[in-house]
Amino acid sequence: MKSNYADDSLTLHTDLYQINMAESYWADGIHNRKSVFELYFRKLPFGNGYAVFAGLERILEYLRNFRFSESDIAYLSEELGYKEDFIEYLKNIRFTGSVYSMKEGELVFANEPIIRIEAPLVEAQLIETALLNIVNYQTLIATKASRIKQIIKDESAAEFGSRRAQEMDAAIWGARAAIIGGFDSTSNVRAGKLFNIPISGTHAHAMVQAYKSEYDAFHSYAKRHKDCVFLVDTYNTLKSGVPNAIRVAKELGDKINFIGIRLDSGDIAFLSKEARRMLDEAGFTDAKIIVSNDLDEYTILNLKAQGAKVDSWGIGTKLITAYDQPALGAVYKLVSIENEEGVMEDTIKITANAEKVSTPGLKKVYRIINRVNGKAEGDYITMADENPHEEERIKMFHPVHTFISKFVTNFEAKDLHVKVIDEGEFVYESPSVKEMQQYAFENLELIWDEYKRSLNPEEYPVDLSQKCWDNKMRNIQEVRNMIHDSEIR
Amino acid sequence: MKSNYADDSLTLHTDLYQINMAESYWADGIHNRKSVFELYFRKLPFGNGYAVFAGLERILEYLRNFRFSESDIAYLSEELGYKEDFIEYLKNIRFTGSVYSMKEGELVFANEPIIRIEAPLVEAQLIETALLNIVNYQTLIATKASRIKQIIKDESAAEFGSRRAQEMDAAIWGARAAIIGGFDSTSNVRAGKLFNIPISGTHAHAMVQAYKSEYDAFHSYAKRHKDCVFLVDTYNTLKSGVPNAIRVAKELGDKINFIGIRLDSGDIAFLSKEARRMLDEAGFTDAKIIVSNDLDEYTILNLKAQGAKVDSWGIGTKLITAYDQPALGAVYKLVSIENEEGVMEDTIKITANAEKVSTPGLKKVYRIINRVNGKAEGDYITMADENPHEEERIKMFHPVHTFISKFVTNFEAKDLHVKVIDEGEFVYESPSVKEMQQYAFENLELIWDEYKRSLNPEEYPVDLSQKCWDNKMRNIQEVRNMIHDSEIR
Repeated sequence: MKSNYADDSLTLHTDLYQINMAESYWADGIHNRKSVFELYFRKLPFGNGYAVFAGLERILEYLRNFRFSESDIAYLSEELGYKEDFIEYLKNIRFTGSVYSMKEGELVFANEPIIRIEAPLVEAQLIETALLNIVNYQTLIATKASRIKQIIKDESAAEFGSRRAQEMDAAIWGARAAIIGGFDSTSNVRAGKLFNIPISGTHAHAMVQAYKSEYDAFHSYAKRHKDCVFLVDTYNTLKSGVPNAIRVAKELGDKINFIGIRLDSGDIAFLSKEARRMLDEAGFTDAKIIVSNDLDEYTILNLKAQGAKVDSWGIGTKLITAYDQPALGAVYKLVSIENEEGVMEDTIKITANAEKVSTPGLKKVYRIINRVNGKAEGDYITMADENPHEEERIKMFHPVHTFISKFVTNFEAKDLHVKVIDEGEFVYESPSVKEMQQYAFENLELIWDEYKRSLNPEEYPVDLSQKCWDNKMRNIQEVRNMIHDSEIR
Repeated sequence: MKSNYADDSLTLHTDLYQINMAESYWADGIHNRKSVFELYFRKLPFGNGYAVFAGLERILEYLRNFRFSESDIAYLSEELGYKEDFIEYLKNIRFTGSVYSMKEGELVFANEPIIRIEAPLVEAQLIETALLNIVNYQTLIATKASRIKQIIKDESAAEFGSRRAQEMDAAIWGARAAIIGGFDSTSNVRAGKLFNIPISGTHAHAMVQAYKSEYDAFHSYAKRHKDCVFLVDTYNTLKSGVPNAIRVAKELGDKINFIGIRLDSGDIAFLSKEARRMLDEAGFTDAKIIVSNDLDEYTILNLKAQGAKVDSWGIGTKLITAYDQPALGAVYKLVSIENEEGVMEDTIKITANAEKVSTPGLKKVYRIINRVNGKAEGDYITMADENPHEEERIKMFHPVHTFISKFVTNFEAKDLHVKVIDEGEFVYESPSVKEMQQYAFENLELIWDEYKRSLNPEEYPVDLSQKCWDNKMRNIQEVRNMIHDSEIR
């Protein structure tokens, strides 16, 4: 970034049309009308049965610092030509709304509001791009990490992808999301510092090349590092790398803590089995085999099926870029807005694609938990004034195929939203990243295994209450009438 | 990011193993040995016939500010436990090496050094992760943008992907890379400010919803914005959106500059043709049709084949995430290092995969341009002490299938590297982003169309000089001997 913008602010991190709309709202005097926006996605990524929400802490920091810097204002005025009156207004804008959000580590499904913004129209509009940018990426990576962790199970998993990440923010926020999704550590030192998460790493091929010999390089590494993992594939894994690692480990004995070896190329299934045999024969039965090399949940599943002897997995590119689906498509939709008389009115966005029609109105999301077996029956979206706790029995029905329905009794309804900002006041303290991970693990216990399968999982129910569904149908009909009127006109 | 780290620095944006290796080098007193590293990728992305290099300006900024901050040092010492002597050393480390790089907008191919670092071993090692992180992403996006631009040709192209980008850095640096690759503008206002690149945008569905009527929303937009593009697909494109846009344009006449309409959903081929007909019949034959909706080079090619009437393309997700291949695999390899006697010695990294074997030695890259037709014959990698200018005739042969060869005479040999840092002194001034784009366009003129085809392009020749090839073979043999010796031992 140009150093002449020392006051670069994220408040300008928005699409131009947001500022254009803000100007129109302001010019028409409707900018302070109370509005309700919901942030949600329409389709789970990777064909997974659930997603793991991440991004809230970054959003709160962004909203806390929401103000245009001096150079932002100068740019808007001098370069883009916004008029003086509007510029004056923008100078003092802050975020004064309320925000309800799921917690990081929460399991989230398609078509349920992850975050609800209740704010003056202009503020809610200006923050859209940044919120989506943050949630889309971090949730994607936390979900991918969780998928991989489902396959790895109790073995350890390290995030190694910084060099292939999509620029620097992705490297660090992706590392953090990976921990939330269940990973043990990252290689990125800056992420370790910023987020207080565990970091890990040993040495690279360059070190072996610099010493021109594995033997010398391993010895040199051991001199300064008590915990030793030797990388054994610079020249020839089985003929040179593993024998040299064993030789150095034997020579140094108790002077080091010989943790194990790392394989970064070649056929991992074959090499790990051979290396395991060599280590065992040399008496290093506790030495671990750490592997990396373009891994993801599919290759890991295959390696395990072939009996690969792996204790620890380093996952890079495929995780940090969410390689097989590098974008989550979360959207941000206006669901309700104050009218001229100060009354809230619901709004809807209609399209030719039925699944893209938004669900109007201020809503809440409950996870319905069966008291008998402790498992979730599904999520239940209601209008804000409904209270499922007061009901003996709720009817849950599929929001598209409405004939698919069930009655649930003896349940708990867990409200998935926490108020994190109360009319501009920040009322939520983020837990540690480790606690978010723990929360995600606990939430996974709540759902049946059929939703956690990495291939073709069952569809977890996300249902609308009868009132919510009726309200949606009424709104669709109103728009139809409007279009019809406009045709006649 | 935690606000208690106001001095967050990118110097810590590295993998832990780099710092571990740095410590060993320093403890062994070899940290200042002169080393040469090359940054290159092994495979072109997207099956494309070329890549467009981007990322240098960000790298120079990173290297200029290369120093550990106070909190970085505290973290390394107190949290990670590096010893005091090494910590003291790190406090004053700066980048003192030399860097040779291709210019941004340069066309680049597989297996040729994009950047060469000549620096003390420890410095070159510590910067690896950040350099790869930057080049991998920015080059990927500039290349994707260029691919799309090849299909779009003279129609205009806008980058719209911020909300789906992989976190915030990707949004802004991706926007910049898109311009280098040939795009006209981005929607990201912050990118516009930071990089002095054109921005564009109109209004969103939310505005129509806020006014509850397209007619009112378009009127309101026109009140403050002379240049008007109306988004016509909030309710029903052909029955409501386009008719309302035409009505407002007619009512306002010369009071606005009615640029056109934007379509963001539905069947673009059908809707654009119908909308074109309606606009033409209403007398708005100059009105433009701008489309967006999950577009990439493949969908655009198909829409054009179906005769879609589009004047301007907005490209989001598929560009900003490089959706079909979201990572470039550039690597950073030690090719030469000073030995105990102060003599430079070449190094090599061998693997079971032949194409992953590095090419040792300090090298240069020339683009061989035929003086007769002005077209490139291929790129030619030589040892640093060779000078193809002095030769009448050069033999170019395929580095794998060596029997594929040709002799070239009457050529110019363009040195693709510029010295950008000279022993710690920053000697290069980046051109404007627009100039980089122009440079990329000019470079595309240099290569034949067969390399620019988006599907199955011909392979552009990147050949080693005889001397360079012989040196590589010699190094491979030396490693083989070493492994053989180690087996006997």
